[in-house]
Formats: sequence, C-alpha cells, structure tokens
Amino acid sequence: MNIDWKNKYSKIMKDFDGYSIGKIFKYLNDPEIISLAGGLPSADMFQKSEMRKASIRLLEENLENIFQYTAVPGEPSLVSAIIDFLKRDDIQVASENIVITSSGQHGLDLTGRLFLNPEDLIMIDRPTFAGAIVSFQMENPQIIGIDMEEDGSNVEEYRKILKKLQRKPKFIYVVPDFQNPTGITTSLEKREALLDISYEYDIPIVEDSPYRDLRYQGKSILSIFALDQKRNGTNVIGVYTFSKIFCPGIRVGFNIAHKDVIEKMGNIKGGNTLNTPKYNQDMCTAFLTEMNYDEHMEKCKDYYREKLDIFLQSMDKYFPKDIGAKWTVPEGGLFLWVSLPESIDTMKLFYEAIKYKVAFVPGEVFYGENPSKNHLRINYSFASKEQLVEAVKRLSNCVKDHLKV
Amino acid sequence: MNIDWKNKYSKIMKDFDGYSIGKIFKYLNDPEIISLAGGLPSADMFQKSEMRKASIRLLEENLENIFQYTAVPGEPSLVSAIIDFLKRDDIQVASENIVITSSGQHGLDLTGRLFLNPEDLIMIDRPTFAGAIVSFQMENPQIIGIDMEEDGSNVEEYRKILKKLQRKPKFIYVVPDFQNPTGITTSLEKREALLDISYEYDIPIVEDSPYRDLRYQGKSILSIFALDQKRNGTNVIGVYTFSKIFCPGIRVGFNIAHKDVIEKMGNIKGGNTLNTPKYNQDMCTAFLTEMNYDEHMEKCKDYYREKLDIFLQSMDKYFPKDIGAKWTVPEGGLFLWVSLPESIDTMKLFYEAIKYKVAFVPGEVFYGENPSKNHLRINYSFASKEQLVEAVKRLSNCVKDHLKV
Repeated sequence: MNIDWKNKYSKIMKDFDGYSIGKIFKYLNDPEIISLAGGLPSADMFQKSEMRKASIRLLEENLENIFQYTAVPGEPSLVSAIIDFLKRDDIQVASENIVITSSGQHGLDLTGRLFLNPEDLIMIDRPTFAGAIVSFQMENPQIIGIDMEEDGSNVEEYRKILKKLQRKPKFIYVVPDFQNPTGITTSLEKREALLDISYEYDIPIVEDSPYRDLRYQGKSILSIFALDQKRNGTNVIGVYTFSKIFCPGIRVGFNIAHKDVIEKMGNIKGGNTLNTPKYNQDMCTAFLTEMNYDEHMEKCKDYYREKLDIFLQSMDKYFPKDIGAKWTVPEGGLFLWVSLPESIDTMKLFYEAIKYKVAFVPGEVFYGENPSKNHLRINYSFASKEQLVEAVKRLSNCVKDHLKV
Repeated sequence: MNIDWKNKYSKIMKDFDGYSIGKIFKYLNDPEIISLAGGLPSADMFQKSEMRKASIRLLEENLENIFQYTAVPGEPSLVSAIIDFLKRDDIQVASENIVITSSGQHGLDLTGRLFLNPEDLIMIDRPTFAGAIVSFQMENPQIIGIDMEEDGSNVEEYRKILKKLQRKPKFIYVVPDFQNPTGITTSLEKREALLDISYEYDIPIVEDSPYRDLRYQGKSILSIFALDQKRNGTNVIGVYTFSKIFCPGIRVGFNIAHKDVIEKMGNIKGGNTLNTPKYNQDMCTAFLTEMNYDEHMEKCKDYYREKLDIFLQSMDKYFPKDIGAKWTVPEGGLFLWVSLPESIDTMKLFYEAIKYKVAFVPGEVFYGENPSKNHLRINYSFASKEQLVEAVKRLSNCVKDHLKV
C-alpha cells in the first residue's frame, strides 16, 4: 500500500547523491578537530556594527516593502549598485544584463538548467569547484575534464579535444581567479586564448568569480567577461556571489550575461524560487554603497594574506618534503591544493586525519569524472592563526605515519 | 562571432516562457489602478514591532552564525518549531521528514525536479495554482487536468481517467484548502477518496497548503497528509510556506514527506541554492515560538474575513447578475473565482479593465493545458476595504460596457 519512493524518482535523480563535500562534514562534529575542510570566510571579517546598523535602518524605514513579494529578477537598487561595482572592474552592464541569485550556487544551477539537455557535453578544468559539478550533474551532462596547469586552464588541450569532438560542448566552465580548489590563477594569455576558442567554436564561457576581489599579491588580471567586452563579444556568462566578500549567510549573488540569457534565467528563477528576499538584497546594497568597500577589502586582504603566509611557513617547516609532496601558492582566494605521492589515497587519509584531529577535503570530489586520488584541498581562511600552525603539524604527522604503515 | 544564444538553450528551456502572471504585472504600474491581481497578503497584518524586536535580538546575539554558511536541510531550531506547529494540525513528523525551502514555489520545484522525466504524466485540478504549473513545466511533463467541482477535486473523474491511462502519473497535485485560484475547499470525503486512489494506483499526492490556517468560517478539515498518517500511509508530500501567515518577503517554507524523499530533496537543494539564509529561518522560528501565533491568526482571520465580506456584498450590489455570472464564496484564503459567460475572453477583458483602472488575473493562466477563457481570479486580501468596493464598481462597469459592444 505504501509507496516505494525510490522507484518514483526521475531517471537523473535516482542516481543523484548530492553535494559530495557535505557528506564528509558529518565526521567533523568533534570540537577538537581543526577543520581546513570548509569554504568559509572568517566571521572576523564580518562588518558587524555596520551590518547591525543597516539592518535596523531597513526594518525601521521600510519593513512593509522588505517583507512583501518583490520583483523576480532583483531589486533595482541592488542591480544599480552592482552596475557601479562592476565598472571598477572594467565591466559595463545594464540592468537587463543582471539577474540576482541566491548566491553562486544558484547562479550555476540557473546556468545548468538553461543550457543542458541530458547527455549534452560540457568542458571543465580538472580539478574544479565541486558545487559547479554538482549543479551541472542535476542535468546529467557528459563532463569532459582538462587537467589544469600551473598558470591555469590548459587551453591548448581544450583546443585539441575540441577538434576531435563530434558534438559541440554547451559551455566551458572556469574559475580564473584563485580557483577553488587549487588556488591557481589563469594567466591573461590563457584568458584571451579561451576567448579565441569561444569565438572559433561558438562555445559560451561560464566564468565563476567568487574570490576575484580577494587578491593578496600580484596584479589583478582582467576577467574573461571584461576581455570579451573589449573584443565586442557577448560570449561570457559571469557568476558572482556576495558570500566571500560580504558574508555567505546572506545568500545573495548575481549572474551577468547577454540580456536574452538573463531574461531566460529570470524565467527559470520564477519557477524555482520566485524572488530573492528583499532584506537580504538590501543588506548587499548597503554593503556595496555604505560600508567603505575599499577599506573593508584591504582589511580582508591583510587578514587572509597573513593566514596564508602562516600556513605556507608551517608547511615549509613541518610537512614532509622528501616524499615528493608539493602545494600551490595562491595569489588570493581561500584555498590551496596539496599533491601527495600517487600511492596515497586522500579519501583514506581523510579518515586517518580525523584521528589526528585535523580535516581537509579529499581532492577526488573536485573531478567530474575519473577522479585523481592523491590530492587534498586546504582552506586557510577560517581557522585561527594558531590553529593553522597546529593543523599543519597534525597533518604532517598523519602523512608521515601513514607512509610508515 | 557572437553567440546566437537562443540556439544554445536546452530543448525544454527554449520554449519555457516563465511565470505567466508575472507578464501581466507590467501593465499595473499606474498607481490609480486598483489591483486585485496579486497574491499578496496585507502588510497591515505584518507583526512589525515583533519583527523588529526579533531581528535586533538575532543580530545582537548571533550575528557571526547568522551570516555564515549553515546546514543545507535547515536550521534545527526552525525544524523543531515546525514539528510542534504541525502537531496542532494532527501531523506527527520528525526532523528527517522536513526540508526547509525558499517558500512554496521552491518546495514545488524541488518536487518537480525529484520526480519528473520529460513527458511523464502528472494530474492536477482545472484550474489550479499557476506557480505549480510553471515549476512542473520546467521538467516538461504531460499535464492531465480534471475540472474542479464545488466541493473540490472531482475524484470520480480522476479515477475514470486513471483507469484508461496506459502509464501511471508521477503524482496528483492538489490545494485542498481555499484553493488558489478558486477559493474552493475539498471536502473530507474527497480527501479520503484521493487517498484511496493513491493507495490503489500507487500514486503520490502532492498537497499544497499555503492558506490552511486562514479559515474565516466553517470547520477545519484534516489535511490529506494527516489523513494519510491516520491510515498508516506515507504517500503524501506536504508543501508549506510562511508567505501567507507570516510574510512573503522572508522567502521561507518547508516540505514534509517520507525521509527518503526529504533526503533527496535536500540533495537537490544542495546543488540548487545550498542553504536557506539563517536570518530568514530564525525570523520564522521567532514567528512560530515568540509572536503569539493564535492571537495573531485570529487577528488575520478577522481582518481578511471582513475584506471578503465587503467584496462579496459589493459583488451582490454592483455586479451584473442577469448575464449569468457567478462566483465562489471561499471559507478562507486570499482568492475567489468569477465565472463569466463563455462569450467573454477574460484576457481581452483584462486590457479593457486596465482602462477602468482595475485589474484581476485572467483565468487562463491557471490551466496546464487547454485553458478555459471566461474566468478571472480575484485577490481580496491586499486592497483596502474602500478600494475593494470601488474595484467592484469599476469591474462591473467594465463588464457591462464590454457586453454592450
């Protein structure tokens, strides 16, 4: 009589297991564990008094509108603040080019839903952001991964594979600045080369930019979106979020693209979540227009740069080098990537590390297909400086002991 | 060189036009228009001082957690408050049976995504909630609509069609209490009969309950979810929202179902939006636990009952009766349904009504296929009492003049 639910799901959802990173978090409840696993910015960088002030003012002045239904594509005041914000980054857009989302995850899902039929091809870097993979997997595409190089996407390899493909990929997905999980930044030359491919093969580029303003050293490189505009193109979809520069809990981001794309994304958003809460959008407007953006970002960058430096110094001091391990040295963002000898399976190492009271994300979750097993992702933004040193000691001991066994 | 975006969309999204009601709102910018078109609760019923108090306290006490990432399925405190809330309605659930959503729209979309392959069958009432149709259409199902009766879903007709179908529908979608758009309530007998069908044909029931606690007269009827539990079933998915009882702008709702279904919906939510903002969830927790729920609902019911009475009295007084028009008399909710002579196309009438400075929603948007053209939906919760009287006068004149032409 009762329904056997597992037999009712759609073909795609029957096999869909959700966010792989989420599954490992359940092992991290022990408060003694120092977690370098999450993707959390530090709450030390939340602008607490400014946020309280903005919140009180919004509820005093405008409660009736804030808590009513609002327009699906987004609040005009936030859209207008974003237009100004993007000008600083050499991007010129109008309101018809912007849809407000519930963060980058939502922006990626709107993208996947708009373009992907089951079995469609997409191309991504190997490794890449696990949240993007998960959102695209809900449409069941065939994922072609191209191994990253030290200076970003391996564009020549993209081109080589494209030449051989019988079908055109629906899009190429990249995170050019301080990529999650590797921390690698794609060079200007490679950004231009990706655009060349986009024009030549008529393939959209989806550019995910959650960390772009968190650069701790080196010179900013124009986004692919800006480079496309300079070449009079409209081939790039930009995915942005307030999660890493303001705070994740507000759940607001935005996509920018050609107006046709944005209109369709708005249609999908209407059937998916309807409007983004106005309070949350208005707080982001306040963040962009009233909370000393430049000063705040300088503070954030100093704060995270110091954590990154401490982490790297500790790795140099404690981590076993003779085993052939290496790690990336990011110029910004929240993550770096440790490559261990191929004999080490970091998923197994994860469960051992838990016993050493330290956690990371096993690298295999960052591959759409055919995962590489000997890498791990480190988040250095959330733990305190003291914890970072201690975490490196624990991780080093764990790896050393693992190799002894 | 530039991408022809329209040729890049997925097969389903190429033809997906989004929320049909949204498209008519652009005609309503003239402030002299009295709109009975929206689905808005009145901001008069927002608990302003309580909301300000709760908001200030949350930001004082817990800002760091509120604006950080939180668990995808939902905040434990809200889930626990919902468990208690549902007990009042004879529903017994545990936290594994609840996923927090970004409102009813999101709850419906999670449902469509979980179950529907393209071309799958679903069954709905004719007419039914346009937002549900839109969310399901994103999966491109075949929709079978069954004309409503005065006491709710025509269950005998459902049964008759089911007997003939070669394939099993994936689910039956209903809004048993004060349905949007008709205001009709499905009788206890018919709720039981829907469950009989569910058991007999092994078909899930999706029960959408946004207005359930807004009953102005008559006795509450157990939800299909509760009736299913009494019969030891687990065949119903309950879709709830805080939009109509608390406020729409908070964008929080919840689905209840068998734990397997909820786990899968959580997986989809992880790839779709990740977590629901904690601030918004905590405000709903405060609503359920600190804002005198019973007293507040009595106030809301008195307020909306009066508006409904005034609207009905005005219709009796002004609306042309000799033309064969009739309208429903809802026992609760926010909407009623006016049926005009078949010669009147209410989409055409809509554009004429705009000239009379009054607006409604043309009934045709509430059909998944083969729309009926001579109905219109009235929202009586948002306009003031004076506006309601004036709106009926204007609408009556519009219809009379329309028939003269």
